[in-house]
Amino acid sequence: MTMQTLTVKLPAESYPILIGQGLLSQLSSFAPYIHSEQVLLVSNETVAPLYLEPLKKTLSDYELDTLILPDGEAYKNLTTLNQIFDTLLAKNHHRDTTLIALGGGVIGDMTGFAAACYQRGVNFIQVPTTLLAQVDASVGGKTAVNHPLGKNMIGAFYQPQVVVIDTEVLTTLPARELKAGLAEVIKTALIADADFFVWLEENINKLRDGDQKALSHAIARCCAIKADIVAQDEKEAGVRALLNLGHTFGHAIETIQEYKQWLHGEAVAAGLVLAADLSMRVAGLPDTDKQRIEALIKRADLPIAIPQDISSEQLVAAMQRDKKVQGGKLRLILLKAIGKAYIEENTKQETLLSMLDPASS
Amino acid sequence: MTMQTLTVKLPAESYPILIGQGLLSQLSSFAPYIHSEQVLLVSNETVAPLYLEPLKKTLSDYELDTLILPDGEAYKNLTTLNQIFDTLLAKNHHRDTTLIALGGGVIGDMTGFAAACYQRGVNFIQVPTTLLAQVDASVGGKTAVNHPLGKNMIGAFYQPQVVVIDTEVLTTLPARELKAGLAEVIKTALIADADFFVWLEENINKLRDGDQKALSHAIARCCAIKADIVAQDEKEAGVRALLNLGHTFGHAIETIQEYKQWLHGEAVAAGLVLAADLSMRVAGLPDTDKQRIEALIKRADLPIAIPQDISSEQLVAAMQRDKKVQGGKLRLILLKAIGKAYIEENTKQETLLSMLDPASS
Repeated sequence: MTMQTLTVKLPAESYPILIGQGLLSQLSSFAPYIHSEQVLLVSNETVAPLYLEPLKKTLSDYELDTLILPDGEAYKNLTTLNQIFDTLLAKNHHRDTTLIALGGGVIGDMTGFAAACYQRGVNFIQVPTTLLAQVDASVGGKTAVNHPLGKNMIGAFYQPQVVVIDTEVLTTLPARELKAGLAEVIKTALIADADFFVWLEENINKLRDGDQKALSHAIARCCAIKADIVAQDEKEAGVRALLNLGHTFGHAIETIQEYKQWLHGEAVAAGLVLAADLSMRVAGLPDTDKQRIEALIKRADLPIAIPQDISSEQLVAAMQRDKKVQGGKLRLILLKAIGKAYIEENTKQETLLSMLDPASS
Repeated sequence: MTMQTLTVKLPAESYPILIGQGLLSQLSSFAPYIHSEQVLLVSNETVAPLYLEPLKKTLSDYELDTLILPDGEAYKNLTTLNQIFDTLLAKNHHRDTTLIALGGGVIGDMTGFAAACYQRGVNFIQVPTTLLAQVDASVGGKTAVNHPLGKNMIGAFYQPQVVVIDTEVLTTLPARELKAGLAEVIKTALIADADFFVWLEENINKLRDGDQKALSHAIARCCAIKADIVAQDEKEAGVRALLNLGHTFGHAIETIQEYKQWLHGEAVAAGLVLAADLSMRVAGLPDTDKQRIEALIKRADLPIAIPQDISSEQLVAAMQRDKKVQGGKLRLILLKAIGKAYIEENTKQETLLSMLDPASS
């Protein structure tokens, strides 16, 4: 078994990201990062039937408690979060306990936030089981739940002890979710690594087909780029905001759809194309680069435009309610080139509308 | 107006504690620590009628929103916390907003925790209006809400931008609450400052009578000691635990009474006497010191024993459920001398029971 180890270096703490096939079955992926007998495994109804038993077998030396939550963004709220606290307290978990999140971004975000808050902070391990969570959500310590008036509005920056990425779990991931994960892979290349973007252009078919070697390379590259950005700016005071490329558009789509139609990665994919289009108009992104971005997203079988039933006005209004608004100005991440993102503080509503309105394009 | 300024120095950030008469009416107590136009004032039904209007007048240049919560420990829970998030989102507060907690420990703990979580952390100012909050709760960044199965079980370490202690607000504080605050003052002296304990023995009557000069001195001394301890150990990995002197006993009393009878400070007072008694038995605290502690607490008109209707067995059982249990061992803060506290990791249940059981004492 080959395993890669990356390190996320933060001012106050460092932690490793382990990437390899079969890590779920290796006690050594976990043991150094668990500091007492108590462990709470948190998973959901979709992932638990596949991977909970293998993980329990790996960790059979510990006092294991288990909590299986309903699956889906709709349950990422304070009520579900409180179920984690209920379980921890009913089972008398102490300050030295460890929470393990086995699932996608929703499980990771909620379990991480519960770990951040339980007794003001306990140990926490991420075991992401979707490509999206492996390349993005599980690295960097952003945890949160949603509020009826906004996504990820209640949360914490809280770092795990270790991120255990077992690429083998991707073999059972539905094709639609694998593709959605590729949107974040493409985003990561666009922000910071033009060579990786070229590699993606050459390997997109392998990735779509679930080739383990190609996926491992892409995951490791994404985690390394993200770890580097997070190390520079843990609390998103500056450069970390670049990771939101495409996301202000994407979140607006998800909000309008009430998270019921497109997957996060699908909304981000359309958002990347819109960000590229806007970048071409106001940031000097060459037209050829915009074409390459759109082509790659299309080859990943992801959306390249907003849904037909969403109007330009609706989208812009939803964007303005997004939390990335600071001091009232609309703040977007744009591209000067492939691999070169920057923060554009002053995007005007009219520029957005004239781009989105087909009559003027 | 005389004002004292102390500084809490932490590895990642520093913040001032301002202590003086009339600070609530001074814009300069607040303006340097507010970083946008938006401010949410959080208070409760008891404090708001007294001090909300004066504070609103002081801050009239800002876009002020106000949330008045019900008063009392019974409301320190996730449901009330969510009211703060509801208000922030309904009023469209951005990441650069400032939350101001105007009230006692409950308002400070909840508002601080809301600030820690809202959009993963926004600015926060403490304006404590009880002696207990001024000398203890508002300094050090411990924020939390209660869970039905345990006090302060859900929270965060989160530091304010500034703590504004206006001693004038103590003139309207009920006598019982002023005395309860003195329990934490005595605790602070016991932990770290024998000279301050002597000063308290000389000035306890003035403090009980609400003498502004004596109160200012006591508050400043307590804040300085606490700031020093927190600077050494923000996250309570070691020395900060000393601040829990008397609290494991006190929390047990409060839990058994379901927070309906004694005030926190009253329960801590009885806890201090029990901790002194135990310290005499197992830690070499001189009997004369134990007598001085009991006498001072009595002169402060605070309880020196557990309530008659609580049995030794009930108390010990409740203590074992307390969160300060680590790896199953009962961990208590004891005294080697007045001004010299330490962490005792291995207190046996039998020692506690034989101390608490009048037949064997």
